Amino acid sequence: MPTQATASPASAKSNASGPSQSGDASLADRYQCVRQFSEQLAEPLSPEDCGIQSMPDASPVKWHLAHTTWFFETFLLKDRPGYERFDDRFTHLFNSYYNAVGEQFTRSQRGVLSRPSFDEMQAYRRHVDQHMATLLDSPDEQIARIVEIGLHHEQQHQELILTDIKHALSQSPLRPVYQAGEFVTAAGNASDGDWLEFDEGVYEIGHPSSDQVGEGFAFDNESPRHRVFVDAFQIADRPVTCGEYCRFIEDGGYQRPELWLSLGWATVSEHGWQAPYYWRAESDSWRQFTLAGDVEVNPAAPVCHVSYFEADAYARWAGARLPTEAEWEVAEREVAAQEVASTASTGGLPSAGGFVDQLLAAGAAVHPGRTWEWTASPYTAYPGYQAPDGALGEYNGKFMCNQFVLRGGSCATHSSHIRSTYRNFFPPEARWQFTGIRLCR
Amino acid sequence: MPTQATASPASAKSNASGPSQSGDASLADRYQCVRQFSEQLAEPLSPEDCGIQSMPDASPVKWHLAHTTWFFETFLLKDRPGYERFDDRFTHLFNSYYNAVGEQFTRSQRGVLSRPSFDEMQAYRRHVDQHMATLLDSPDEQIARIVEIGLHHEQQHQELILTDIKHALSQSPLRPVYQAGEFVTAAGNASDGDWLEFDEGVYEIGHPSSDQVGEGFAFDNESPRHRVFVDAFQIADRPVTCGEYCRFIEDGGYQRPELWLSLGWATVSEHGWQAPYYWRAESDSWRQFTLAGDVEVNPAAPVCHVSYFEADAYARWAGARLPTEAEWEVAEREVAAQEVASTASTGGLPSAGGFVDQLLAAGAAVHPGRTWEWTASPYTAYPGYQAPDGALGEYNGKFMCNQFVLRGGSCATHSSHIRSTYRNFFPPEARWQFTGIRLCR
Amino acid sequence: MPTQATASPASAKSNASGPSQSGDASLADRYQCVRQFSEQLAEPLSPEDCGIQSMPDASPVKWHLAHTTWFFETFLLKDRPGYERFDDRFTHLFNSYYNAVGEQFTRSQRGVLSRPSFDEMQAYRRHVDQHMATLLDSPDEQIARIVEIGLHHEQQHQELILTDIKHALSQSPLRPVYQAGEFVTAAGNASDGDWLEFDEGVYEIGHPSSDQVGEGFAFDNESPRHRVFVDAFQIADRPVTCGEYCRFIEDGGYQRPELWLSLGWATVSEHGWQAPYYWRAESDSWRQFTLAGDVEVNPAAPVCHVSYFEADAYARWAGARLPTEAEWEVAEREVAAQEVASTASTGGLPSAGGFVDQLLAAGAAVHPGRTWEWTASPYTAYPGYQAPDGALGEYNGKFMCNQFVLRGGSCATHSSHIRSTYRNFFPPEARWQFTGIRLCR
Amino acid sequence: MPTQATASPASAKSNASGPSQSGDASLADRYQCVRQFSEQLAEPLSPEDCGIQSMPDASPVKWHLAHTTWFFETFLLKDRPGYERFDDRFTHLFNSYYNAVGEQFTRSQRGVLSRPSFDEMQAYRRHVDQHMATLLDSPDEQIARIVEIGLHHEQQHQELILTDIKHALSQSPLRPVYQAGEFVTAAGNASDGDWLEFDEGVYEIGHPSSDQVGEGFAFDNESPRHRVFVDAFQIADRPVTCGEYCRFIEDGGYQRPELWLSLGWATVSEHGWQAPYYWRAESDSWRQFTLAGDVEVNPAAPVCHVSYFEADAYARWAGARLPTEAEWEVAEREVAAQEVASTASTGGLPSAGGFVDQLLAAGAAVHPGRTWEWTASPYTAYPGYQAPDGALGEYNGKFMCNQFVLRGGSCATHSSHIRSTYRNFFPPEARWQFTGIRLCR
Repeated sequence: MPTQATASPASAKSNASGPSQSGDASLADRYQCVRQFSEQLAEPLSPEDCGIQSMPDASPVKWHLAHTTWFFETFLLKDRPGYERFDDRFTHLFNSYYNAVGEQFTRSQRGVLSRPSFDEMQAYRRHVDQHMATLLDSPDEQIARIVEIGLHHEQQHQELILTDIKHALSQSPLRPVYQAGEFVTAAGNASDGDWLEFDEGVYEIGHPSSDQVGEGFAFDNESPRHRVFVDAFQIADRPVTCGEYCRFIEDGGYQRPELWLSLGWATVSEHGWQAPYYWRAESDSWRQFTLAGDVEVNPAAPVCHVSYFEADAYARWAGARLPTEAEWEVAEREVAAQEVASTASTGGLPSAGGFVDQLLAAGAAVHPGRTWEWTASPYTAYPGYQAPDGALGEYNGKFMCNQFVLRGGSCATHSSHIRSTYRNFFPPEARWQFTGIRLCR
Repeated sequence: MPTQATASPASAKSNASGPSQSGDASLADRYQCVRQFSEQLAEPLSPEDCGIQSMPDASPVKWHLAHTTWFFETFLLKDRPGYERFDDRFTHLFNSYYNAVGEQFTRSQRGVLSRPSFDEMQAYRRHVDQHMATLLDSPDEQIARIVEIGLHHEQQHQELILTDIKHALSQSPLRPVYQAGEFVTAAGNASDGDWLEFDEGVYEIGHPSSDQVGEGFAFDNESPRHRVFVDAFQIADRPVTCGEYCRFIEDGGYQRPELWLSLGWATVSEHGWQAPYYWRAESDSWRQFTLAGDVEVNPAAPVCHVSYFEADAYARWAGARLPTEAEWEVAEREVAAQEVASTASTGGLPSAGGFVDQLLAAGAAVHPGRTWEWTASPYTAYPGYQAPDGALGEYNGKFMCNQFVLRGGSCATHSSHIRSTYRNFFPPEARWQFTGIRLCR
Repeated sequence: MPTQATASPASAKSNASGPSQSGDASLADRYQCVRQFSEQLAEPLSPEDCGIQSMPDASPVKWHLAHTTWFFETFLLKDRPGYERFDDRFTHLFNSYYNAVGEQFTRSQRGVLSRPSFDEMQAYRRHVDQHMATLLDSPDEQIARIVEIGLHHEQQHQELILTDIKHALSQSPLRPVYQAGEFVTAAGNASDGDWLEFDEGVYEIGHPSSDQVGEGFAFDNESPRHRVFVDAFQIADRPVTCGEYCRFIEDGGYQRPELWLSLGWATVSEHGWQAPYYWRAESDSWRQFTLAGDVEVNPAAPVCHVSYFEADAYARWAGARLPTEAEWEVAEREVAAQEVASTASTGGLPSAGGFVDQLLAAGAAVHPGRTWEWTASPYTAYPGYQAPDGALGEYNGKFMCNQFVLRGGSCATHSSHIRSTYRNFFPPEARWQFTGIRLCR
Repeated sequence: MPTQATASPASAKSNASGPSQSGDASLADRYQCVRQFSEQLAEPLSPEDCGIQSMPDASPVKWHLAHTTWFFETFLLKDRPGYERFDDRFTHLFNSYYNAVGEQFTRSQRGVLSRPSFDEMQAYRRHVDQHMATLLDSPDEQIARIVEIGLHHEQQHQELILTDIKHALSQSPLRPVYQAGEFVTAAGNASDGDWLEFDEGVYEIGHPSSDQVGEGFAFDNESPRHRVFVDAFQIADRPVTCGEYCRFIEDGGYQRPELWLSLGWATVSEHGWQAPYYWRAESDSWRQFTLAGDVEVNPAAPVCHVSYFEADAYARWAGARLPTEAEWEVAEREVAAQEVASTASTGGLPSAGGFVDQLLAAGAAVHPGRTWEWTASPYTAYPGYQAPDGALGEYNGKFMCNQFVLRGGSCATHSSHIRSTYRNFFPPEARWQFTGIRLCR
């Protein structure tokens, strides 16, 4: 397979920041825009739908909408003179995991909270939005920094709204549709795939510290920017497709312990996994549950809803491996370019109007079929990483254990939320996120 | 303590059937009446409230409303010529435990079913009610028998609607109110209490077989009527009050293993029980969560929401024991008479209008403060008991293991559902039902 | 099927006590005899074997030998002037469940106690036996009563030694043999079986209170002797055989939910039960693990190692039911007579010498193939039952919940421990005891 | 704190291999020596002791002795012409986790295997040792390689014999002593502690591939030797002492969520951790269970039996962090030198004779008080790592998930088993290994 692209350590050095999301829009405008988009995501759903929690790891849509509001109230409004809390008890009720803020309502019981009702939750949003509007008239730098965090925080929950409601709806034998026609990749042929090649060397990865001007937003865990030595490597120019993954299944992939990590094999055996989550076998084909309902698996689309265990086993079966996050980030510019090409070759975005177009109009650019990509890197602190002081220090740092880094972004990730240094992370057994596979060697 | 009443084996013999519920009302009328009452119970609740399930043992209100409808569809309509099912998938979705009907949707996941929506569930009720109306124009005896079962089945679920939503609402720190002002016992003084005395002898208990005309409705597990030898005994003329139970708590009742069954002590230790369910200590008093919200514990009211373990331990502490179900049934007429007196002495029903009055108008006669009473009798088959053939044979018989019989009826039991031979049953650790204590010796 | 025997209420009245075990032997002699027999049971085992615990419900042989010794030390020696405890820490270590004596070492961890060693445990037995010898020189009535309890307690543990080591040895793929040749029922043909018939009436069952002279020993839970009304019934003249049980299996017994209690079906499904415990299918026959190793299932022998759930399901399949304990006790004299006949017809005791003969010489009369028989009666207190004061009150009373009564005695029960009023009890899912089935109707 | 040592990337490059263990001794001699030492470790124990398993993660001593024998039989003897297996069933029974070899006996049930007895297990060892002696007369290179793995494998299990029996003995309230007087660190004062300083740069770590001659033995997971970029860092010249850790406890370390990883805090809360494993508070001091029995905690000794969670929380409290494994390996030569100094300053090895001296004579050099050191590095594959083909490929690679690397060696690690590139690994919650803390910053 011929080399299509090469990069040298030097050329990668200037690749620090992701696309600047701030652009021209004022902070107040962007606040409004992000907040609105969350509510748009709930529009296809009834209050009943918004209340359900189908497993402890997932949360009700209503809870996401309340918690993101709580975030602004807690970290920006709560102690301001003149601010009156909407309901004191929400401090406890919608605290996710901030011990410094106080006790948290039991995570696995979020689905039991029919009160506050969906309407009351909406009123809560209005209340906080009004006060935020005032605050955003002339925010100082510290406030602006926290607002930025709050907006990116809300965007993370926008993705969780989609992954969690997908999981919830999938539990019903009625196979409810979130939004018809969307989220389905158009038919087409995947490219044959090729390897992008990179030289060994000391590369810089990560985001410059947040104190540096003009670098765009990043979470604390993406800093400091630092040097890593990377051996020469090749990375695939597109993710593994469903068609390729089917060959792994047909080759007994789920029955051969030698392909799996020990914990992975134990997990496969315990749960009887036979295919990606949401897939089910039908006479001679695979079907999958999607936000657009029950559809046939598209062989040209990237495989999705696989755990780290499955990604790792697939790579071993394919005679390859998963990239480290350093490799992924070094390769990112090339990967992104190929991504566009690859998307094109699989037929591109669906032409049909409706919800996805609406999302695109809202700047969301939801890419059908795009997935997060598991890396081989456990989620750890970058050299010199310091969690911020105070409650916000709990945002990222304390989860650096028994999770793996995912890179890229998915069909459910807002386009303004995607950047090359972004570090998503989930435990190796997680499957309900939009997670796929890119090979390396 | 002087004897207030005596009964002899002979006098008890004629006490076979409960009050006839059939009365004048036609079956069609009663069908409508019972069905309507279920929906009335959901009126104070939002669709969101009706969807939640707070533990595997409890079900969402919406599920109760659908399942009771499923019962009529499955056992009366499904196979009738011309009947079209509302939705084929409901056969599976709203089957509680009838293996003969087919697989059941996982019980613990009922709260995840936001679909069908509350409105669709209502439409399902309308659909079935319409077809039932036709059927009830001229029901034959076999149909009438099954309709009777279906109506009493629905009444059982009416009580569960109240116990389950109470449990669900109690999970929220917001302490939501189901219906203000009702379900709270008025203040007052409990009587000192006295013992009713009964002679030894062979008594008849149970309900004559359903084939006998004019005996009123009973479930299969109440038959056959049969003889039991009962030793002389005394039974309390009123249930144990909260005030009395407080003295048990203050005397270290929850800390003294010698008062408890071995399984009871293990349960107390594992869960850290310190008081009846829904009670919580406040500086120098006890408060409890009720369907009317958070109120102070009323010392004159019967203690409620205790498990069999607690009832048994309390009785041991009090130098008494729980009655067997034979003793309870033998004593029932006297107990019932005293019940009225006792209710009067604790202040009677709340004068306030609203929901309870509405229930009373609907014939429900919900007695504030009244509880089911744990008996010492494990739930077993009466001599000669035969479960009916077919799926309805699964109604009662297969649960005759590791449960205890409760007698009487509670504030949440419809008055037309109360009769002397009725056998309610729950596992010894259950606390979320309206369950209390009557002493015997 | 012709009636073979009838009994009337009157004739049963004199049948109160079991065979007098006291006989001529002095208490001191019997003490020595019972204690020795426990140690004989450990003879085929190594100290390593005696230390293992294969599940929380079972205990190591060493623990049984120590705990029975602890019983005499705790209830008879501990507080006597001049007695020095062997090791103070044993009070805690070998306390099974007596809260009044103090905390107990965690039950599920008994297998972790390699110390005290088997030899130290033997020394403990010697120490206590010496002091008991002195005490038994001239025991007063109160002491004699507790010694009797202690000896019957030790006999109960003798049976547990055999059931628990059988379970432990069965875990090893090496299928170790406890004692070759014994415990295996000889081949032969079971009788066709017949029904013994009994009239309705008020019968007396249970043991006269222990204060009455000359009535022989019984545990507190067998008293008071009391009247019960029993409907006319028929009871099988022999237990269900393996051959008969095989037909239940072949008829899909383990696949038909309608035959099972709800909890039973849940248990069958969860554990995938397909046959009695210790059975395993081989090409075209069944084999079972026994104390004599792996042998073919003998169709003429009583089926053994079935749970209450299986006994109940079998009875339903056979168009019969299990007897209540009152029925069983009323029928006991006839049943016992038939037992002898039935034993004879299946080939009687094995002629071979060795361990069983040794047991017989020791008066144990271990009947190959004999089993405890599940009754339909949950284990509850007899009318008027009072648990004794003090720690010994914890012996029986506190277990009266979620267990079923078994009657008779098994191949592992010492003959001097069998009596008509004896109430054994186990939870409905227990299978590792020697438990079988007798039908009633 | 002044710098005491510096290293530059260049100087570290030649530090690839650990001390050569091969030395002069022939492979046959070393085989005998290692095998003997395993049995010496069992000498203070009875067969009963050797059979117990106190938790699923730990194994009985007897099992370790059998499994290490199984290793040689399976990977070297099994298929050789003329070799007869000791017992075919051992293939299954003593297989730890090699799926390529076949099914494994359930790990958590190893303690139930009283058979084979300790004596039979010894005979198994003799059998295999005899055949190995013949094989070792003239081993080819491939055989020699596997024998080396087998010997280092056995040394790993030697350490597990000590950690597992420590855990097992600790369960008994009798607090049994494995070997008196040994394993206890002498009193003395710890040094004040200092920081060793290292420059940033590209360093080489890891072991050259096993094909390279003269590099000494290493496991596959230590290769390939590869370059890493390391920022400048400082590392402590001695591990954290018990005295220092006490100050963490006194400062509320176990009560402050902000010091802990999220999973760590959940673990602390669930299990109620208050101190290192084996510690217990007594009036005004800490005592700990050791292989020498119950002793007072020595403030000058390195803290031991802490989980990764505790190591990480301690480091955060101390304003430092844990070293990465690259940092640790880079610093190793300096660390090792300081180790000697530090050991000296805490009083050195105990002068007393007995078991430790015996171990020293046997070349074991068990260092009292020495611990493995948690690194901040999750256990992952080195760049270019390839698990070997066949069953031995399951040795290390498949465990690269949710574990953290430990470096160094403990008081229970044979001195010939310690080398700078060695990668030990355990899950972050593990505490029963000899694990301690070294700070970095």
